[in-house]
Amino acid sequence: MQIIHTVAELRQWRKHAGKVAFVPTMGNLHQGHLALVRAARQHADAVVVSIFVNRLQFGQGEDFDRYPRTLQEDADKLKGEGVAVVFAPDERELYPHVSQDYNVEPPHLQNELCGRFRPGHFRGVATVVTKLFNIVAPDVACFGKKDYQQLAVIRGLVADLNFNIDIVPVDTGRAEDGLALSSRNAYLTPAERAQAPQMYAMLSQMAAQIRGGRQDYANLEAVAVANMQQQGWQVDYIEVRHADTLAVAHAGDKQVVIVAAARLGKTRLIDNIEVNLD
Amino acid sequence: MQIIHTVAELRQWRKHAGKVAFVPTMGNLHQGHLALVRAARQHADAVVVSIFVNRLQFGQGEDFDRYPRTLQEDADKLKGEGVAVVFAPDERELYPHVSQDYNVEPPHLQNELCGRFRPGHFRGVATVVTKLFNIVAPDVACFGKKDYQQLAVIRGLVADLNFNIDIVPVDTGRAEDGLALSSRNAYLTPAERAQAPQMYAMLSQMAAQIRGGRQDYANLEAVAVANMQQQGWQVDYIEVRHADTLAVAHAGDKQVVIVAAARLGKTRLIDNIEVNLD
Repeated sequence: MQIIHTVAELRQWRKHAGKVAFVPTMGNLHQGHLALVRAARQHADAVVVSIFVNRLQFGQGEDFDRYPRTLQEDADKLKGEGVAVVFAPDERELYPHVSQDYNVEPPHLQNELCGRFRPGHFRGVATVVTKLFNIVAPDVACFGKKDYQQLAVIRGLVADLNFNIDIVPVDTGRAEDGLALSSRNAYLTPAERAQAPQMYAMLSQMAAQIRGGRQDYANLEAVAVANMQQQGWQVDYIEVRHADTLAVAHAGDKQVVIVAAARLGKTRLIDNIEVNLD
Repeated sequence: MQIIHTVAELRQWRKHAGKVAFVPTMGNLHQGHLALVRAARQHADAVVVSIFVNRLQFGQGEDFDRYPRTLQEDADKLKGEGVAVVFAPDERELYPHVSQDYNVEPPHLQNELCGRFRPGHFRGVATVVTKLFNIVAPDVACFGKKDYQQLAVIRGLVADLNFNIDIVPVDTGRAEDGLALSSRNAYLTPAERAQAPQMYAMLSQMAAQIRGGRQDYANLEAVAVANMQQQGWQVDYIEVRHADTLAVAHAGDKQVVIVAAARLGKTRLIDNIEVNLD
């Protein structure tokens, strides 16, 4: 496994790499990332994992500065996972002029759901992913369903900007108590960590109700928000949406996803469940 | 020479094409385009010319509908020029959902010079060129210096979004009387056509003055605008700018470009001259 820090070296390696599957990450790897890597391995001759904490996708007051940077531990975790290259550019390698002047602007979806609470986040994601796609030139790229809106944005940009890359969605890794694996779980106090599985429990209950025939999504959402608030969560949103487009879901829709974001103390957690009504 | 209309067929062809040089056009080819093709041939095993009148880069009230579509004549002109593929997608092939949801947003330069008079134009250019780059996957792409601001935007987006493509600028083709070759010259009445070389004459005169040591660019610009107006032109701008960045030029700058846009009757013409003061 090589660790490559520059675009030029990565491109040099890429010339002879055959079919490449790509897993972009911000590092601080956990089992959820390793599941992405294992999925990637099924699709290509070589797997590239990028590790880059992308300033562009953090808003003011967000956790860019304290986001954990753990390259050595990350590299150790990737050994034995069949990864060909870890691409770990420093900030000046990807943003040599500090500012990024050309940006990929997603449609209105970027201002909904998480985008309402993180202005500019999905522009930052779309832009850095475009850059990384152009650097790595993968045939396949794997994204976790945990960041469901991000997955929708990536799918949209690949289709709309004609990237010749297959996007492979990978199921969310979970702790035994159901909590979705996330680097941000490390911010939780022990008491918050004990409480955190309530989010997945709430989503599971909503999914069961919808599978049972409930189609009054607005009511279901309002009850879920109230329950979570009562348990001490600050809820950003809990919504039922179209699984593909993330448009607001309506009664009769066959593929929906329940998406949620809420804060426990200072830590913002997100999760979701897909519900197939076909 | 193959004429390919779909993304899928182009990609199939691309797999075995070796090093590819790309010349994106809107068709209605003239000698200026053929100069681009000849430059492209110097850089690659195979040349792809795209012909696509891109609705995104036309503003309301601009000439999208009457822009000449002359695929058969264009193909005839390209025969014997060593072109491997003419890529001529129809509109639904590039914009299957009609709307383009993900756009490449250039920096403020997009609102200056031509951008002041053509809002959204450079976003449309940057977006379609990104799409075409992702479809054609060229190693090299040739752009004419006649559209100097477009060239600057393309250079910027390639650098900033990490496209692995060499951008080759190609000198402006000119009629014997100096008029820059342009598809829009066909809109000129005979009287306007006779008058049109005044623009290049004005630029040449300014360039001579600057080479002669004049650095009071604002004065030079004001005089040129007044002279052109007196001759019956409606001037959008005549400006001295930095050749690379297109930032406003200052006394002491070594590489400048004089850029101009003005209308004769209903036809808008643009031209420019680079001045090297090193």
